[in-house]
Amino acid sequence: MRLDVVTIFPEYLEPLNVSLVGKARARGQLDVHVHDLRQWTYDRHNTVDDTPYGGGPGMVMKTEPWGDALDSVLADGYESGAGTPTLIVPTPSGRPFTQELAVQLSERPWLIFTPARYEGIDRRVIDEYATRMPVHEVSIGDYVLAGGEAAVLVVTEAVARLLPGVLGNAESHRDDSFAPGAMASLLEGPVYTKPPVWRGRDIPEVLLSGHHGKIARWRRDEALRRTTRNRPDLIERCEPKAFDKKDREMLSILGWEPDPEGEPYGRFWRRAEGVEE
Amino acid sequence: MRLDVVTIFPEYLEPLNVSLVGKARARGQLDVHVHDLRQWTYDRHNTVDDTPYGGGPGMVMKTEPWGDALDSVLADGYESGAGTPTLIVPTPSGRPFTQELAVQLSERPWLIFTPARYEGIDRRVIDEYATRMPVHEVSIGDYVLAGGEAAVLVVTEAVARLLPGVLGNAESHRDDSFAPGAMASLLEGPVYTKPPVWRGRDIPEVLLSGHHGKIARWRRDEALRRTTRNRPDLIERCEPKAFDKKDREMLSILGWEPDPEGEPYGRFWRRAEGVEE
Repeated sequence: MRLDVVTIFPEYLEPLNVSLVGKARARGQLDVHVHDLRQWTYDRHNTVDDTPYGGGPGMVMKTEPWGDALDSVLADGYESGAGTPTLIVPTPSGRPFTQELAVQLSERPWLIFTPARYEGIDRRVIDEYATRMPVHEVSIGDYVLAGGEAAVLVVTEAVARLLPGVLGNAESHRDDSFAPGAMASLLEGPVYTKPPVWRGRDIPEVLLSGHHGKIARWRRDEALRRTTRNRPDLIERCEPKAFDKKDREMLSILGWEPDPEGEPYGRFWRRAEGVEE
Repeated sequence: MRLDVVTIFPEYLEPLNVSLVGKARARGQLDVHVHDLRQWTYDRHNTVDDTPYGGGPGMVMKTEPWGDALDSVLADGYESGAGTPTLIVPTPSGRPFTQELAVQLSERPWLIFTPARYEGIDRRVIDEYATRMPVHEVSIGDYVLAGGEAAVLVVTEAVARLLPGVLGNAESHRDDSFAPGAMASLLEGPVYTKPPVWRGRDIPEVLLSGHHGKIARWRRDEALRRTTRNRPDLIERCEPKAFDKKDREMLSILGWEPDPEGEPYGRFWRRAEGVEE
Protein backbone atom coordinates (compact mmCIF):
# COMPACT_ATOMS: atom_id res chain seq x y z
CA MET A 1 0.00 0.00 0.00
CA ARG A 2 1.17 3.49 -0.85
CA LEU A 3 0.45 6.42 1.51
CA ASP A 4 0.98 10.09 0.68
CA VAL A 5 0.52 12.87 3.22
CA VAL A 6 0.65 16.56 2.27
CA THR A 7 1.00 18.83 5.30
CA ILE A 8 2.56 22.06 6.57
CA PHE A 9 3.92 20.07 9.54
CA PRO A 10 5.85 17.13 8.07
CA GLU A 11 7.61 16.63 11.44
CA TYR A 12 4.23 15.80 12.97
CA LEU A 13 4.22 12.61 10.91
CA GLU A 14 7.40 11.27 12.55
CA PRO A 15 5.38 8.54 14.34
CA LEU A 16 4.98 6.92 10.90
CA ASN A 17 8.60 5.81 11.42
CA VAL A 18 7.81 4.15 14.74
CA SER A 19 6.23 0.95 16.00
CA LEU A 20 3.76 -0.95 13.83
CA VAL A 21 3.68 1.49 10.90
CA GLY A 22 7.45 1.96 11.01
CA LYS A 23 8.00 -1.79 10.97
CA ALA A 24 5.54 -2.25 8.09
CA ARG A 25 7.53 0.36 6.14
CA ALA A 26 10.81 -1.35 6.94
CA ARG A 27 9.35 -4.64 5.65
CA GLY A 28 8.13 -2.94 2.44
CA GLN A 29 4.44 -3.44 3.25
CA LEU A 30 3.87 0.30 3.29
CA ASP A 31 5.39 2.90 0.97
CA VAL A 32 5.00 6.21 2.82
CA HIS A 33 5.64 9.67 1.32
CA VAL A 34 5.31 12.78 3.48
CA HIS A 35 5.33 16.08 1.56
CA ASP A 36 5.69 19.65 2.79
CA LEU A 37 2.84 21.68 1.28
CA ARG A 38 5.08 24.76 1.24
CA GLN A 39 7.14 23.14 -1.54
CA TRP A 40 4.28 24.25 -3.79
CA THR A 41 4.26 27.91 -2.75
CA TYR A 42 6.11 30.43 -4.91
CA ASP A 43 6.09 33.65 -2.85
CA ARG A 44 8.74 34.81 -0.43
CA HIS A 45 6.61 33.99 2.63
CA ASN A 46 5.49 30.53 1.43
CA THR A 47 1.90 31.55 1.96
CA VAL A 48 -0.63 28.72 2.25
CA ASP A 49 -3.60 30.62 3.71
CA ASP A 50 -5.66 33.76 3.22
CA THR A 51 -8.74 35.43 4.75
CA PRO A 52 -12.14 33.80 4.16
CA TYR A 53 -14.53 35.15 1.54
CA GLY A 54 -17.55 36.56 3.33
CA GLY A 55 -15.49 37.61 6.36
CA GLY A 56 -15.20 36.09 9.80
CA PRO A 57 -12.38 34.86 11.99
CA GLY A 58 -9.65 32.45 11.01
CA MET A 59 -7.83 31.73 7.78
CA VAL A 60 -8.59 29.40 4.86
CA MET A 61 -5.99 27.27 3.06
CA LYS A 62 -5.52 28.36 -0.55
CA THR A 63 -6.43 26.38 -3.65
CA GLU A 64 -3.17 26.76 -5.59
CA PRO A 65 -0.64 25.07 -3.26
CA TRP A 66 -3.04 22.18 -2.63
CA GLY A 67 -3.86 21.80 -6.32
CA ASP A 68 -0.21 21.84 -7.37
CA ALA A 69 0.77 19.47 -4.55
CA LEU A 70 -1.96 16.95 -5.37
CA ASP A 71 -1.17 17.09 -9.11
CA SER A 72 2.47 16.37 -8.35
CA VAL A 73 1.69 13.54 -5.91
CA LEU A 74 -0.74 11.99 -8.39
CA ALA A 75 1.74 12.18 -11.27
CA ASP A 76 4.41 10.49 -9.15
CA GLY A 77 2.09 7.77 -7.89
CA TYR A 78 0.63 6.96 -11.30
CA GLU A 79 4.13 6.81 -12.76
CA SER A 80 5.21 4.30 -10.13
CA GLY A 81 2.10 2.16 -10.69
CA ALA A 82 0.45 2.84 -7.34
CA GLY A 83 -3.01 1.98 -8.66
CA THR A 84 -6.22 3.91 -8.03
CA PRO A 85 -5.90 6.65 -5.40
CA THR A 86 -8.36 7.41 -2.61
CA LEU A 87 -8.33 10.88 -1.09
CA ILE A 88 -8.83 11.17 2.66
CA VAL A 89 -9.62 14.61 4.04
CA PRO A 90 -9.60 14.77 7.84
CA THR A 91 -12.13 17.39 8.98
CA PRO A 92 -14.46 17.82 11.97
CA SER A 93 -17.25 18.29 9.39
CA GLY A 94 -16.73 14.82 7.89
CA ARG A 95 -18.46 11.51 8.40
CA PRO A 96 -17.30 9.54 11.42
CA PHE A 97 -14.25 7.39 10.81
CA THR A 98 -15.19 3.86 11.86
CA GLN A 99 -13.61 0.43 12.00
CA GLU A 100 -15.75 -0.49 9.00
CA LEU A 101 -14.18 2.30 6.96
CA ALA A 102 -10.73 1.25 8.20
CA VAL A 103 -11.39 -2.23 6.79
CA GLN A 104 -12.51 -0.77 3.44
CA LEU A 105 -9.49 1.51 3.22
CA SER A 106 -7.14 -1.36 4.07
CA GLU A 107 -8.18 -2.93 0.76
CA ARG A 108 -7.24 0.13 -1.32
CA PRO A 109 -3.80 0.29 -2.96
CA TRP A 110 -3.11 3.99 -2.42
CA LEU A 111 -4.30 6.54 0.14
CA ILE A 112 -3.61 10.28 -0.08
CA PHE A 113 -4.17 12.41 3.05
CA THR A 114 -4.68 16.19 3.11
CA PRO A 115 -4.55 17.24 6.78
CA ALA A 116 -5.48 20.94 7.02
CA ARG A 117 -4.91 23.67 9.56
CA TYR A 118 -6.86 26.85 10.42
CA GLU A 119 -10.49 26.86 9.17
CA GLY A 120 -9.82 24.19 6.53
CA ILE A 121 -9.07 23.99 2.80
CA ASP A 122 -10.86 26.06 0.13
CA ARG A 123 -13.80 23.87 -0.84
CA ARG A 124 -12.98 23.96 -4.53
CA VAL A 125 -9.94 21.73 -3.96
CA ILE A 126 -12.11 18.90 -2.64
CA ASP A 127 -14.73 19.47 -5.37
CA GLU A 128 -12.02 19.33 -8.06
CA TYR A 129 -10.41 16.05 -6.97
CA ALA A 130 -13.76 14.45 -6.18
CA THR A 131 -14.33 14.42 -9.96
CA ARG A 132 -11.27 12.21 -10.34
CA MET A 133 -11.22 9.78 -7.41
CA PRO A 134 -13.15 8.60 -4.35
CA VAL A 135 -12.96 11.14 -1.54
CA HIS A 136 -13.65 10.44 2.13
CA GLU A 137 -14.07 13.45 4.38
CA VAL A 138 -13.69 11.91 7.81
CA SER A 139 -13.90 13.00 11.42
CA ILE A 140 -12.15 10.85 14.01
CA GLY A 141 -14.42 12.06 16.83
CA ASP A 142 -16.51 14.86 18.35
CA TYR A 143 -13.69 17.09 19.51
CA VAL A 144 -11.68 19.84 17.88
CA LEU A 145 -8.00 19.44 17.00
CA ALA A 146 -5.52 22.10 15.92
CA GLY A 147 -5.12 20.36 12.57
CA GLY A 148 -5.64 17.13 10.69
CA GLU A 149 -2.22 15.58 11.30
CA ALA A 150 -3.19 13.68 14.45
CA ALA A 151 -6.17 12.30 12.52
CA VAL A 152 -3.80 11.06 9.79
CA LEU A 153 -1.81 9.15 12.42
CA VAL A 154 -5.01 7.63 13.77
CA VAL A 155 -6.41 6.58 10.38
CA THR A 156 -3.03 5.30 9.18
CA GLU A 157 -2.55 3.16 12.27
CA ALA A 158 -6.09 1.77 12.19
CA VAL A 159 -5.64 0.84 8.52
CA ALA A 160 -2.05 -0.41 8.68
CA ARG A 161 -2.72 -2.93 11.45
CA LEU A 162 -5.31 -4.58 9.21
CA LEU A 163 -2.87 -5.22 6.36
CA PRO A 164 -1.88 -8.88 5.96
CA GLY A 165 1.23 -9.75 7.95
CA VAL A 166 1.51 -6.44 9.81
CA LEU A 167 0.36 -7.52 13.28
CA GLY A 168 2.88 -9.56 15.25
CA ASN A 169 2.23 -12.44 17.62
CA ALA A 170 1.88 -10.24 20.67
CA GLU A 171 -1.12 -8.58 19.09
CA SER A 172 -4.37 -9.93 17.78
CA HIS A 173 -7.52 -8.87 15.96
CA ARG A 174 -9.63 -11.65 17.31
CA ASP A 175 -11.13 -10.07 20.42
CA ASP A 176 -10.83 -6.44 19.31
CA SER A 177 -13.50 -4.15 20.62
CA PHE A 178 -15.54 -3.25 17.51
CA ALA A 179 -14.36 -6.38 15.66
CA PRO A 180 -16.97 -8.60 13.99
CA GLY A 181 -17.92 -11.79 15.82
CA ALA A 182 -19.27 -12.73 19.22
CA MET A 183 -18.01 -9.57 20.85
CA ALA A 184 -19.41 -7.29 18.14
CA SER A 185 -20.62 -4.08 19.74
CA LEU A 186 -19.34 -5.05 23.18
CA LEU A 187 -16.30 -3.52 24.84
CA GLU A 188 -13.63 -5.84 26.18
CA GLY A 189 -13.60 -6.37 29.92
CA PRO A 190 -10.60 -6.26 32.26
CA VAL A 191 -7.41 -8.28 31.67
CA TYR A 192 -4.85 -9.63 34.12
CA THR A 193 -1.42 -11.19 34.06
CA LYS A 194 1.15 -12.40 36.61
CA PRO A 195 1.76 -11.97 39.50
CA PRO A 196 -1.43 -13.34 41.08
CA VAL A 197 -1.23 -10.78 43.89
CA TRP A 198 0.06 -7.22 43.45
CA ARG A 199 -0.03 -4.63 46.23
CA GLY A 200 -2.59 -6.76 48.05
CA ARG A 201 -4.84 -6.99 44.97
CA ASP A 202 -5.63 -10.44 43.62
CA ILE A 203 -7.24 -11.52 40.37
CA PRO A 204 -10.74 -12.93 39.81
CA GLU A 205 -10.64 -16.56 40.94
CA VAL A 206 -12.41 -17.89 37.85
CA LEU A 207 -9.37 -17.00 35.71
CA LEU A 208 -7.33 -19.59 37.65
CA SER A 209 -10.02 -22.29 37.35
CA GLY A 210 -8.87 -23.68 34.02
CA HIS A 211 -12.57 -24.05 33.13
CA HIS A 212 -12.82 -22.60 29.61
CA GLY A 213 -16.62 -22.31 29.60
CA LYS A 214 -16.72 -20.45 32.89
CA ILE A 215 -13.89 -18.15 31.82
CA ALA A 216 -15.64 -17.33 28.53
CA ARG A 217 -18.87 -16.63 30.43
CA TRP A 218 -17.05 -14.40 32.94
CA ARG A 219 -15.44 -12.46 30.12
CA ARG A 220 -18.76 -12.02 28.38
CA ASP A 221 -20.39 -10.80 31.62
CA GLU A 222 -17.57 -8.33 32.20
CA ALA A 223 -17.88 -7.10 28.60
CA LEU A 224 -21.60 -6.53 29.19
CA ARG A 225 -20.88 -4.77 32.48
CA ARG A 226 -18.33 -2.43 30.93
CA THR A 227 -20.40 -1.72 27.84
CA THR A 228 -23.54 -0.82 29.79
CA ARG A 229 -21.47 1.53 31.94
CA ASN A 230 -19.23 3.18 29.34
CA ARG A 231 -21.21 2.83 26.12
CA PRO A 232 -24.94 2.51 26.81
CA ASP A 233 -25.42 3.67 23.19
CA LEU A 234 -23.86 0.39 21.98
CA ILE A 235 -26.10 -1.80 24.17
CA GLU A 236 -29.22 0.10 23.15
CA ARG A 237 -28.51 -0.70 19.52
CA CYS A 238 -27.81 -4.43 20.00
CA GLU A 239 -30.46 -6.53 18.30
CA PRO A 240 -32.24 -8.90 20.71
CA LYS A 241 -30.85 -11.93 18.85
CA ALA A 242 -27.30 -10.78 19.69
CA PHE A 243 -27.88 -11.96 23.28
CA ASP A 244 -28.39 -15.48 24.61
CA LYS A 245 -30.24 -16.45 27.79
CA LYS A 246 -27.21 -15.87 30.04
CA ASP A 247 -26.55 -12.50 28.42
CA ARG A 248 -30.13 -11.49 29.14
CA GLU A 249 -29.81 -12.57 32.77
CA MET A 250 -26.68 -10.47 33.11
CA LEU A 251 -28.33 -7.49 31.43
CA SER A 252 -31.23 -7.81 33.84
CA ILE A 253 -28.83 -7.86 36.81
CA LEU A 254 -27.18 -4.73 35.36
CA GLY A 255 -30.60 -3.04 35.23
CA TRP A 256 -31.37 -3.27 31.53
CA GLU A 257 -34.57 -4.47 29.86
CA PRO A 258 -35.93 -4.84 26.31
CA ASP A 259 -37.44 -1.64 24.91
CA PRO A 260 -40.47 -2.72 22.88
CA GLU A 261 -41.28 0.80 21.61
CA GLY A 262 -37.75 1.68 20.64
CA GLU A 263 -37.39 -0.57 17.62
CA PRO A 264 -38.24 2.07 14.97
CA TYR A 265 -35.45 4.14 16.52
CA GLY A 266 -32.97 1.29 16.50
CA ARG A 267 -33.24 1.14 20.30
CA PHE A 268 -33.74 -2.41 21.48
CA TRP A 269 -32.70 -2.06 25.13
CA ARG A 270 -33.20 0.53 27.85
CA ARG A 271 -32.30 1.07 31.47
CA ALA A 272 -35.08 -0.25 33.68
CA GLU A 273 -36.94 2.43 35.57
CA GLY A 274 -35.21 3.60 38.72
CA VAL A 275 -31.80 2.30 37.63
CA GLU A 276 -29.15 4.98 37.80
CA GLU A 277 -26.34 5.45 35.32
CA MET B 1 -0.31 22.69 32.90
CA ARG B 2 1.91 19.67 33.45
CA LEU B 3 1.63 16.61 31.19
CA ASP B 4 3.29 13.24 31.83
CA VAL B 5 3.17 10.38 29.33
CA VAL B 6 4.46 6.89 30.18
CA THR B 7 4.90 4.73 27.08
CA ILE B 8 7.02 2.02 25.48
CA PHE B 9 7.26 4.23 22.37
CA PRO B 10 8.55 7.63 23.55
CA GLU B 11 9.49 8.50 19.93
CA TYR B 12 5.81 8.36 19.03
CA LEU B 13 5.28 11.46 21.14
CA GLU B 14 7.65 13.58 19.01
CA PRO B 15 4.69 15.61 17.67
CA LEU B 16 4.43 17.14 21.15
CA ASN B 17 7.48 19.19 20.05
CA VAL B 18 5.71 20.49 16.94
CA SER B 19 3.12 23.11 16.08
CA LEU B 20 0.65 24.33 18.67
CA VAL B 21 1.72 22.03 21.50
CA GLY B 22 5.40 22.59 20.73
CA LYS B 23 4.92 26.36 20.80
CA ALA B 24 2.95 26.18 24.04
CA ARG B 25 5.88 24.26 25.56
CA ALA B 26 8.38 26.80 24.27
CA ARG B 27 6.33 29.58 25.88
CA GLY B 28 6.19 27.70 29.20
CA GLN B 29 2.41 27.14 29.05
CA LEU B 30 2.89 23.38 29.01
CA ASP B 31 5.43 21.35 30.95
CA VAL B 32 5.66 18.01 29.12
CA HIS B 33 7.46 14.90 30.40
CA VAL B 34 7.63 11.76 28.26
CA HIS B 35 8.87 8.64 30.06
CA ASP B 36 9.99 5.28 28.71
CA LEU B 37 8.10 2.58 30.64
CA ARG B 38 11.07 0.23 30.22
CA GLN B 39 13.06 2.43 32.66
CA TRP B 40 11.03 0.63 35.32
CA THR B 41 11.84 -2.91 34.23
CA TYR B 42 14.63 -4.77 35.97
CA ASP B 43 15.14 -7.92 33.89
CA ARG B 44 17.55 -8.38 31.01
CA HIS B 45 14.79 -8.26 28.37
CA ASN B 46 13.00 -5.22 29.83
CA THR B 47 9.79 -7.19 29.92
CA VAL B 48 6.58 -5.16 30.13
CA ASP B 49 4.03 -7.83 29.16
CA ASP B 50 3.01 -11.40 29.92
CA THR B 51 0.29 -13.87 28.91
CA PRO B 52 -3.28 -13.23 30.11
CA TYR B 53 -4.72 -15.12 33.09
CA GLY B 54 -7.50 -17.33 31.81
CA GLY B 55 -5.80 -17.86 28.45
CA GLY B 56 -6.51 -16.39 25.05
CA PRO B 57 -4.54 -14.50 22.42
CA GLY B 58 -2.44 -11.41 22.96
CA MET B 59 -0.38 -10.14 25.86
CA VAL B 60 -1.22 -8.05 28.91
CA MET B 61 0.96 -5.24 30.27
CA LYS B 62 2.31 -6.07 33.72
CA THR B 63 1.44 -4.35 36.99
CA GLU B 64 4.96 -3.78 38.31
CA PRO B 65 6.50 -1.51 35.64
CA TRP B 66 3.34 0.61 35.48
CA GLY B 67 3.09 0.83 39.27
CA ASP B 68 6.73 1.81 39.67
CA ALA B 69 6.52 4.29 36.78
CA LEU B 70 3.41 5.99 38.13
CA ASP B 71 4.83 6.17 41.67
CA SER B 72 7.94 7.83 40.31
CA VAL B 73 6.02 10.29 38.10
CA LEU B 74 3.72 11.16 41.00
CA ALA B 75 6.60 11.72 43.40
CA ASP B 76 8.31 14.03 40.91
CA GLY B 77 5.16 16.00 40.12
CA TYR B 78 4.14 16.44 43.75
CA GLU B 79 7.65 17.58 44.61
CA SER B 80 7.55 20.24 41.90
CA GLY B 81 4.11 21.47 43.02
CA ALA B 82 2.17 20.28 39.98
CA GLY B 83 -1.12 20.19 41.91
CA THR B 84 -3.74 17.45 41.77
CA PRO B 85 -3.12 14.83 39.07
CA THR B 86 -5.73 13.36 36.72
CA LEU B 87 -5.02 9.98 35.15
CA ILE B 88 -6.05 9.48 31.53
CA VAL B 89 -6.10 5.92 30.24
CA PRO B 90 -6.69 5.67 26.47
CA THR B 91 -8.57 2.44 25.73
CA PRO B 92 -11.16 1.30 23.18
CA SER B 93 -13.23 0.17 26.20
CA GLY B 94 -13.42 3.68 27.65
CA ARG B 95 -16.06 6.39 27.54
CA PRO B 96 -16.02 8.52 24.40
CA PHE B 97 -13.60 11.43 24.52
CA THR B 98 -15.65 14.56 23.75
CA GLN B 99 -15.10 18.29 23.41
CA GLU B 100 -16.89 18.66 26.75
CA LEU B 101 -14.28 16.45 28.43
CA ALA B 102 -11.50 18.37 26.62
CA VAL B 103 -12.85 21.57 28.22
CA GLN B 104 -12.95 19.94 31.68
CA LEU B 105 -9.43 18.56 31.32
CA SER B 106 -8.12 21.96 30.16
CA GLU B 107 -8.96 23.26 33.64
CA ARG B 108 -6.89 20.62 35.45
CA PRO B 109 -3.32 21.44 36.47
CA TRP B 110 -1.74 18.07 35.73
CA LEU B 111 -2.60 15.23 33.35
CA ILE B 112 -0.89 11.81 33.35
CA PHE B 113 -1.36 9.55 30.32
CA THR B 114 -0.84 5.77 30.25
CA PRO B 115 -1.05 4.69 26.59
CA ALA B 116 -0.96 0.88 26.43
CA ARG B 117 -0.10 -1.65 23.76
CA TYR B 118 -1.24 -5.26 23.20
CA GLU B 119 -4.44 -6.22 25.06
CA GLY B 120 -4.08 -3.40 27.59
CA ILE B 121 -2.81 -2.92 31.14
CA ASP B 122 -3.47 -5.33 34.02
CA ARG B 123 -6.70 -4.00 35.54
CA ARG B 124 -5.26 -3.78 39.03
CA VAL B 125 -3.09 -0.82 38.00
CA ILE B 126 -6.15 1.29 37.15
CA ASP B 127 -7.99 0.09 40.27
CA GLU B 128 -5.00 1.03 42.44
CA TYR B 129 -4.57 4.60 41.16
CA ALA B 130 -8.31 5.20 41.00
CA THR B 131 -8.22 5.17 44.82
CA ARG B 132 -5.86 8.13 44.74
CA MET B 133 -6.97 10.42 41.89
CA PRO B 134 -9.64 10.96 39.24
CA VAL B 135 -9.25 8.48 36.38
CA HIS B 136 -10.73 8.87 32.90
CA GLU B 137 -10.69 5.80 30.68
CA VAL B 138 -11.34 7.32 27.27
CA SER B 139 -11.84 6.13 23.74
CA ILE B 140 -11.23 8.62 20.93
CA GLY B 141 -13.54 6.76 18.51
CA ASP B 142 -14.99 3.46 17.31
CA TYR B 143 -11.93 2.06 15.63
CA VAL B 144 -8.98 -0.01 16.83
CA LEU B 145 -5.46 1.41 17.06
CA ALA B 146 -2.20 -0.44 17.65
CA GLY B 147 -1.74 1.43 20.91
CA GLY B 148 -2.79 4.43 22.93
CA GLU B 149 -0.07 6.83 21.78
CA ALA B 150 -2.06 8.32 18.89
CA ALA B 151 -4.92 8.89 21.33
CA VAL B 152 -2.55 10.78 23.65
CA LEU B 153 -1.64 13.11 20.76
CA VAL B 154 -5.32 13.66 20.02
CA VAL B 155 -6.34 14.37 23.63
CA THR B 156 -3.29 16.55 24.26
CA GLU B 157 -3.94 18.66 21.18
CA ALA B 158 -7.67 19.04 21.91
CA VAL B 159 -6.86 20.14 25.46
CA ALA B 160 -3.83 22.33 24.71
CA ARG B 161 -5.62 24.50 22.17
CA LEU B 162 -8.16 25.44 24.87
CA LEU B 163 -5.53 26.77 27.27
CA PRO B 164 -5.53 30.56 27.60
CA GLY B 165 -3.16 32.22 25.13
CA VAL B 166 -2.29 29.07 23.16
CA LEU B 167 -4.28 29.70 19.96
CA GLY B 168 -2.78 32.32 17.66
CA ASN B 169 -4.62 34.85 15.51
CA ALA B 170 -4.86 32.55 12.50
CA GLU B 171 -6.96 30.16 14.53
CA SER B 172 -10.20 30.62 16.39
CA HIS B 173 -12.57 28.81 18.74
CA ARG B 174 -15.57 30.87 17.83
CA ASP B 175 -17.09 28.86 15.00
CA ASP B 176 -15.61 25.47 15.94
CA SER B 177 -17.74 22.51 15.05
CA PHE B 178 -18.89 21.17 18.46
CA ALA B 179 -18.29 24.55 20.16
CA PRO B 180 -21.07 25.97 22.32
CA GLY B 181 -23.17 28.77 20.78
CA ALA B 182 -25.25 29.23 17.66
CA MET B 183 -23.48 26.46 15.77
CA ALA B 184 -23.74 23.96 18.63
CA SER B 185 -24.27 20.50 17.16
CA LEU B 186 -23.91 21.71 13.56
CA LEU B 187 -20.91 21.03 11.36
CA GLU B 188 -19.25 23.96 9.64
CA GLY B 189 -20.01 24.40 5.97
CA PRO B 190 -17.53 25.05 3.13
CA VAL B 191 -14.98 27.88 3.22
CA TYR B 192 -13.33 29.82 0.39
CA THR B 193 -10.49 32.27 -0.10
CA LYS B 194 -8.83 34.06 -3.02
CA PRO B 195 -8.64 33.75 -6.01
CA PRO B 196 -12.32 34.15 -6.95
CA VAL B 197 -11.90 31.70 -9.84
CA TRP B 198 -9.65 28.63 -9.72
CA ARG B 199 -9.50 26.03 -12.49
CA GLY B 200 -12.82 27.34 -13.78
CA ARG B 201 -14.48 27.04 -10.36
CA ASP B 202 -15.93 30.18 -8.80
CA ILE B 203 -17.20 30.84 -5.31
CA PRO B 204 -20.80 31.25 -4.10
CA GLU B 205 -21.89 34.77 -5.13
CA VAL B 206 -23.39 35.62 -1.77
CA LEU B 207 -19.91 35.64 -0.20
CA LEU B 208 -19.01 38.65 -2.38
CA SER B 209 -22.24 40.51 -1.55
CA GLY B 210 -20.96 42.26 1.56
CA HIS B 211 -24.39 41.59 3.09
CA HIS B 212 -23.62 40.23 6.54
CA GLY B 213 -27.13 38.93 7.22
CA LYS B 214 -27.29 37.02 3.94
CA ILE B 215 -23.81 35.60 4.44
CA ALA B 216 -24.68 34.41 7.97
CA ARG B 217 -27.87 32.80 6.64
CA TRP B 218 -25.99 31.10 3.79
CA ARG B 219 -23.44 29.73 6.24
CA ARG B 220 -26.16 28.46 8.52
CA ASP B 221 -27.94 26.77 5.58
CA GLU B 222 -24.69 25.13 4.46
CA ALA B 223 -24.03 23.96 8.02
CA LEU B 224 -27.51 22.39 8.08
CA ARG B 225 -26.92 20.82 4.67
CA ARG B 226 -23.59 19.29 5.68
CA THR B 227 -24.83 18.13 9.07
CA THR B 228 -27.90 16.37 7.68
CA ARG B 229 -25.66 14.62 5.13
CA ASN B 230 -22.64 13.70 7.26
CA ARG B 231 -24.06 13.56 10.79
CA PRO B 232 -27.79 12.85 10.77
CA ASP B 233 -27.31 11.69 14.38
CA LEU B 234 -26.50 15.28 15.41
CA ILE B 235 -29.58 16.74 13.68
CA GLU B 236 -31.85 14.10 15.19
CA ARG B 237 -30.77 15.13 18.66
CA CYS B 238 -31.21 18.92 18.15
CA GLU B 239 -33.99 20.25 20.35
CA PRO B 240 -36.72 21.99 18.35
CA LYS B 241 -35.91 25.31 20.02
CA ALA B 242 -32.40 25.16 18.54
CA PHE B 243 -33.86 26.06 15.13
CA ASP B 244 -35.55 29.26 14.02
CA LYS B 245 -38.11 29.64 11.20
CA LYS B 246 -35.49 29.85 8.46
CA ASP B 247 -33.65 26.81 9.84
CA ARG B 248 -36.90 24.86 9.76
CA GLU B 249 -37.53 25.90 6.15
CA MET B 250 -34.07 24.73 5.20
CA LEU B 251 -34.51 21.44 7.09
CA SER B 252 -37.76 20.91 5.23
CA ILE B 253 -36.01 21.53 1.88
CA LEU B 254 -33.36 19.00 2.95
CA GLY B 255 -36.11 16.46 3.63
CA TRP B 256 -36.26 16.56 7.42
CA GLU B 257 -39.32 16.90 9.64
CA PRO B 258 -40.10 16.97 13.37
CA ASP B 259 -40.42 13.51 14.95
CA PRO B 260 -43.24 13.77 17.50
CA GLU B 261 -42.86 10.21 18.81
CA GLY B 262 -39.08 10.36 19.13
CA GLU B 263 -38.82 12.67 22.10
CA PRO B 264 -38.47 9.96 24.79
CA TYR B 265 -35.55 8.68 22.73
CA GLY B 266 -33.95 12.11 22.39
CA ARG B 267 -34.88 12.06 18.69
CA PHE B 268 -36.53 15.34 17.70
CA TRP B 269 -36.08 15.17 13.91
CA ARG B 270 -36.32 12.49 11.28
CA ARG B 271 -35.95 12.14 7.52
CA ALA B 272 -39.33 12.60 5.84
CA GLU B 273 -40.69 9.45 4.25
CA GLY B 274 -39.28 8.74 0.82
CA VAL B 275 -36.20 10.93 1.34
CA GLU B 276 -33.00 9.07 0.65
CA GLU B 277 -29.79 9.42 2.56
